Formats: sequence, C-alpha cells, structure tokens
Amino acid sequence: MNILDIIAKKVKKLELTKNELEFAVTGYVKGEIPDYQMSALLMAIMLNGMTEKETACLTEVMLNSGDKLTFDYNIVDKHSTGGVGDKTTLVLVPLVASLGTKVAKMSGRGLGHTGGTIDKLEAIEGFNTNLTVEEFKKEVEEIGASIAGQTGDLCPADKKIYALRDVTGTVASIPLIASSIMSKKLASGANKIVIDLKVGIGALMTNLEDARKLANLMVKIGRLSGKEVIVVLTNMNEPLGYAVGNALEVHEAIDTLKGQGPKDLEELVINLASLMVSLDQNIPMEILLENVERALKDGEAYEKFKEIILYQGGDINNIKIADNITEVIAENDGYVKSIDALKIGELARRLGAGRVKKDDIINPKVGIVLTKKVSDEVKKGDVLAKIYYDNTIIPTQDVLECFKITKEKVEKPKLIYEIIKE
Amino acid sequence: MNILDIIAKKVKKLELTKNELEFAVTGYVKGEIPDYQMSALLMAIMLNGMTEKETACLTEVMLNSGDKLTFDYNIVDKHSTGGVGDKTTLVLVPLVASLGTKVAKMSGRGLGHTGGTIDKLEAIEGFNTNLTVEEFKKEVEEIGASIAGQTGDLCPADKKIYALRDVTGTVASIPLIASSIMSKKLASGANKIVIDLKVGIGALMTNLEDARKLANLMVKIGRLSGKEVIVVLTNMNEPLGYAVGNALEVHEAIDTLKGQGPKDLEELVINLASLMVSLDQNIPMEILLENVERALKDGEAYEKFKEIILYQGGDINNIKIADNITEVIAENDGYVKSIDALKIGELARRLGAGRVKKDDIINPKVGIVLTKKVSDEVKKGDVLAKIYYDNTIIPTQDVLECFKITKEKVEKPKLIYEIIKE
Repeated sequence: MNILDIIAKKVKKLELTKNELEFAVTGYVKGEIPDYQMSALLMAIMLNGMTEKETACLTEVMLNSGDKLTFDYNIVDKHSTGGVGDKTTLVLVPLVASLGTKVAKMSGRGLGHTGGTIDKLEAIEGFNTNLTVEEFKKEVEEIGASIAGQTGDLCPADKKIYALRDVTGTVASIPLIASSIMSKKLASGANKIVIDLKVGIGALMTNLEDARKLANLMVKIGRLSGKEVIVVLTNMNEPLGYAVGNALEVHEAIDTLKGQGPKDLEELVINLASLMVSLDQNIPMEILLENVERALKDGEAYEKFKEIILYQGGDINNIKIADNITEVIAENDGYVKSIDALKIGELARRLGAGRVKKDDIINPKVGIVLTKKVSDEVKKGDVLAKIYYDNTIIPTQDVLECFKITKEKVEKPKLIYEIIKE
Repeated sequence: MNILDIIAKKVKKLELTKNELEFAVTGYVKGEIPDYQMSALLMAIMLNGMTEKETACLTEVMLNSGDKLTFDYNIVDKHSTGGVGDKTTLVLVPLVASLGTKVAKMSGRGLGHTGGTIDKLEAIEGFNTNLTVEEFKKEVEEIGASIAGQTGDLCPADKKIYALRDVTGTVASIPLIASSIMSKKLASGANKIVIDLKVGIGALMTNLEDARKLANLMVKIGRLSGKEVIVVLTNMNEPLGYAVGNALEVHEAIDTLKGQGPKDLEELVINLASLMVSLDQNIPMEILLENVERALKDGEAYEKFKEIILYQGGDINNIKIADNITEVIAENDGYVKSIDALKIGELARRLGAGRVKKDDIINPKVGIVLTKKVSDEVKKGDVLAKIYYDNTIIPTQDVLECFKITKEKVEKPKLIYEIIKE
C-alpha cells in the first residue's frame, strides 16, 4: 500500500477501504507519512467527500489509535460543537447528576474565541481538572459526576490530524468533523451521547442543511458502534446567554443554577438535561421536563455543583473578574435585530479570553457581557454591553458594530431548531 | 494577506488574484509557507481548477521567481511532455539546426520511467551537459545549436512546487501543468515554442479532451506573453520507436539521423522540425516537409549532431550498451493490438534505466528494445522484444504481458492527432 495511491483514489472520488484509512492514519501518527501528504489527502477528502462507510471506518481507526475508557455502569455524555458564550456544561452536569444520572464529562481547552469548559472551570481558584483515570472514575462513583480535562491518551490520531486541519483550511468537512467528534466520544466510554450541534454565524456549521447532514452522520456512526446518539440543533447566531469570557461565564452559570439565569441558557440546559436523563432512565423526555426545571429552580442542581467544585479543590467564593469596565452605549432607538456571535467571540479573544496559538495563556477575568439580546427594545443611551478588560482594551465601537438595531419590532429567535435521533 | 484565507477562497472555487498567487508562491519559496499548507492549496487547485487568468498569473509569478535568459536573435524551442522511448530531441535539434534555425535546448533529467534527454546524452562518453549560460549561448552562436541541462536559476518556484506535487498526488492538474511548462519555456528565452504533447496510456494526459484543454491553455498563455506557441498532440499508447533506455535510445537516434530510424520517430521529427523551421523562417510548413526529410535522409542532420557531440566533448563511438540480452518470445500467432507504454517504461525503470527517487543513479546501458510494434504480424516463436540487463533482471513474462496479440488484423495507429495553434 502506498499513500500516493490512496490520495489518487480519493481524487477520483472512490471509496477508501478501512485498510487504506488505517494505513494513512497510523502511518501519519507514527511519522512515516509526512504532514504535506496528509494535508493533500485531507483536502481531497474535504472537497470530494466520504461515504458513511468511510466516515465510520475513519472514526474506528482514530478510536483505536489510543486508550479507551470503560465504566461498570451507564454513562451519559454530552458534547457541544462549540459556540460563543457556551457555558452549558457547567450547568448541565450538576443538573443531570442531581437527578440521579451519572455524568463523566471530559472537556477540552479551547483553541477558539473563548476558552473551553476546562479553561472556564480554571477561573475558579484551586479547581483541579487534571485528574487521573482512577480519580475521575472515583468521583463519578462517589458523587455522580466529574468534569475533567482529557485523561489517558484518547484518540492521539484525532489530536494530530485536528491540529493539521486547523492550519491547512480543512476544518469545515462534515465527515472529518463527524469522525473527530465521534471517535473522542466513543473513546471516553459513554454509551448514551447527547450532542449540542450549534448552527449559525458563531458556529462551525453555518446552515441547517449542513448541520442536519452532520447530525445524521453522527447518529449513524453511533448506531454502528452500538451507542445511542441524539443530536440537538441549536441557534448560535447570537452568543448564548449574556456573558462571554471565562470567569464571567462561570458567574452566569452559577446564577443559572440559582434559578436566575438567562432565558435561552435555561431553556437549553433544561432540554439537554431532560434528554440525557431520559436516555439513561428510559423515561419519556416530555415527562421529565417539569422535574428537571424544578431541580434547577429549587437549588438541587446548585448543591451538586458546589459538591463537584469542592471535590475537585475549587473555592466557589473565589472567581475573580476584571475591575475595569467600559460600557457600550446605544446610539439609536429600536430593537436588536442581530448580535454577531463570531465578532463578539473574536473581540473577547482580543481582550485575552481566548487563544490564537496553542500555548497562549488565557486571562480568565476578561470578556464581554451583553445587556441586550436579540428582540430586546433599545433606547438611545442604553447600555448594550459591558467590556471587562485588564491589560488589553478594545474600542467600544467594535462591540457596538456587532449589534444591528432596527426600527421594526423583532421576534425572539428560536433557540432549539430540531432534535435528531434514530 | 494570509495563506489560510487563500486556501479557503480556492475551496470556495473563487478566482485567486495575482497578488494572492504571488503571496503563496513567494512565501513558499522563501520557506515562510510550509509544505503542508502549499500541498493543501495545490490539492484545492487540482480539484477546483483555475481560470485562464489565474493560470497566466501563476505562470508569471513562477517565471519571475528566478533568472530569465535572453538572446539577441530568434530562438525556437521545443518541449515534450514526456513519454516512453521519447528520444525526439536528439534527432530534432541537429535536424532543425542543419536547416539554419537556431535551437538553444535546455533539457531536464527524468524523474520518470526512463531518463530525460540529459540522462540520455550522458550515455555518450565524455558528453558535457553542464554548461554556463555563456558557454551555452556561445555554442548556439557558433554551431547553431546546443543541448544543455538547466543553466542559471530558472523558475526556482516551479522547481520547488513541482517536487511537492510529485509527492502529494497533485501532478495531474491541467492549469498546474500548463503553468509549470510555460514558466520554464518563457524563462529560457525562446520566442517561438513547439510543444509535443503526448497523449495516451504512457503519458501524463491519457485522453484527447484533456490534452486539448492543456494545449489551448498553453497557446493562450504564450500569446499573453507575446510568444508564439504551437502544440502537437501525439500518440503515446505504445513506446515511440523501438528502444527504451538511455544508451539504446541514443543508438536509435543515430540510426534515425542516418535515415534508418523507426517510421513513427521519423514521422514525428520531420513534422516537428518543419513546424519549428516554419515558425522561425516564416515558410509554410507544407513546403518545408520535403526539405526537412531530405536533410534527415542525406546526412546533413547527422553531420550537425556529430558537431554538437564533439563541441560538448562527447565521443560518439563510445556509447555502451549492456552485454546481457534476453529475448521475449511470442506464444501465439496474430497481430500486435497494443503495447502498454506505461508498463514498458516501468519495467525499464526496474532494470535501472530510470529513477524512483531524485538521487537514484541511472544505468545508461540497460533497457528494452521492442522488435514488434502495434499492427505488426507475429508468428509463435518470433522475438517481440529484447531485454538489455546488467545487475538487475526482470522476468520476460512481465514484458510479454505488455503485448496484446489478436487474431484480427490491426490498423497502424495514428501518430499525430492534431496541431493546435492560434
């Protein structure tokens, strides 16, 4: 077998066999196939596509490239494809655990506009996300949940290939995204998986049609591996909630756990939690919704959150935010038509809330907090957003330009578009 | 400007500007853009194509990356896209020069099945192809022709990009082939260019439709640069002539210069020479054909060949071929339906006549000499080909399998398909 023959086959739009995918991926991981050949193959895959069978084979090859976690009991996992202001995991994990469903959540750091869940949690003084597999499993067993950085050597092939895709313009490929997400989820040992697939200007998938394709592909790959996968397509045109930036988002998550969160975030976590508990406990989701809302509103979920923070060494009373605040002021009366999530994310990154390069250090204290959301009425002089800054400041004008204000009334946008399952 | 934006633009099938192409190519030559990003861009170009404008811009960018030769007089150049048994240049250059048209021929080494023209000439003991620009020009001025390896630093961008294409499966792209050929031809200072574009199983272009596209593109790029370009589409399904292998091909070229060459090679050189002289001297090609044939048959061209060999230090009486010969014997009666040029080329390479890697050393003495060509009648027991070997031997069966013999009479295949010019 020869990598040039494999590339040539994909150039001709032919289906690659599992052996060929394995040859390419393991050769690349071992360093026998250089970056420049892998990037040519990835570009050919991105432009000529892969069949469902090929995507499932690639997932399996990447899954088999490293460790696989196993649990003695049912584990429900949740994954988000990532968006701006996405602090869902922080609320969802304790909420689900408070309802008796075990969650073993492995999260990543973000090479995006704002940090990943792990970066957000590290805004809590003392919180340790660096657990061994044993510590991780023990916590799930004892208190029903844990949130940790990746433990063990899961999917090293995906890690190496993802890093190459990131610098060769080959990220936006549906089969490559599907196999990357699913290989990681399958390696982390969950047998029921809920995926929050963000759709919109602030997300990887910018339209519903592509999102549906990706969702169906992941559901099918799950089935082929004997795992139940449900994908929820959710709106990521404006940021989720109000806060964008690590410590700011943790504060907003805590507000939500106290029953005082933004409506969109609340709606999302209640739905995702109901789906997860429903999958685990075999109770129809519709019946669960009320129970889940109660657990969120009456403080049960917050108690579980505090338990997790304490267990992992964090001090919930020590989550620092920046002292310097600049307000972004509306120049006209009207209604908020849109808030560009992508640009808000990029501005937060410029403040120090996210990374450009892998080894950049995040400033957990900075970010942007919106005070208006899409459809809100605005009067000239109102505060639209607050910029929390530390060493770097950005022009308020840049944030102002993320807001589109119109004279006409604007309808509240839909948050949950569709739920895709078998 | 940013290479990822340029890749993303080509992924979306948008036209790249000259500035963008320049940024990518010069960044790559300087080492600022790594191989893996260039290979992703090349694959995107190969699969999504380039417009004529883009191809012309890329040609210009590569042309401007290095030295450009200039001559004080008209220079006619010839280029072959390469095929198996293609010793045309060896006959054509002295033939054209013997008719008073100056030829300054820069040739390459082959990273193909068999050597390039330079490798073939080096089978002549003492022959020096390593000339300075001054020596090269002086020879053209004094005796009307020179054949040298690339002098000066012509198109370094093309060199680096071609080497990358070779190992990333991005060779077979019409705009990339056109810009590679044309940048080199424009840099070498010719103002009239005849291109022998091989079509068939043993060539880069396997069908006439693609070959026509490539031909038209090169004619247009030539016009944009004020150069007259004529492309001749010729058959490369069976090897050209009988001999495949460096010294063996030089001997066949000499036979042809003595008026005893294979019919197909003779037809090709007479037509190409007529086109070249016609371009230079503004005489209709049809009128020239007879004159050209006479120059080949009565020894004028051979005299010029000896002059060139002598001038460049070669000993025409010292062109060694391998002593060990195995015959390939026909097993059935019939007619030769086809001879797989690609496989014959690969077998010759296995004998040592060509390179797999750039620094492989060619054995000039080995190769394969066909004794039957397509349409020839064959009797069981006839010799179909002879294998000239030295250190490595190949099974005669492998050569035998290159021949398809049928019971039905076979028509002599057409050699020259079309001549494409403005």
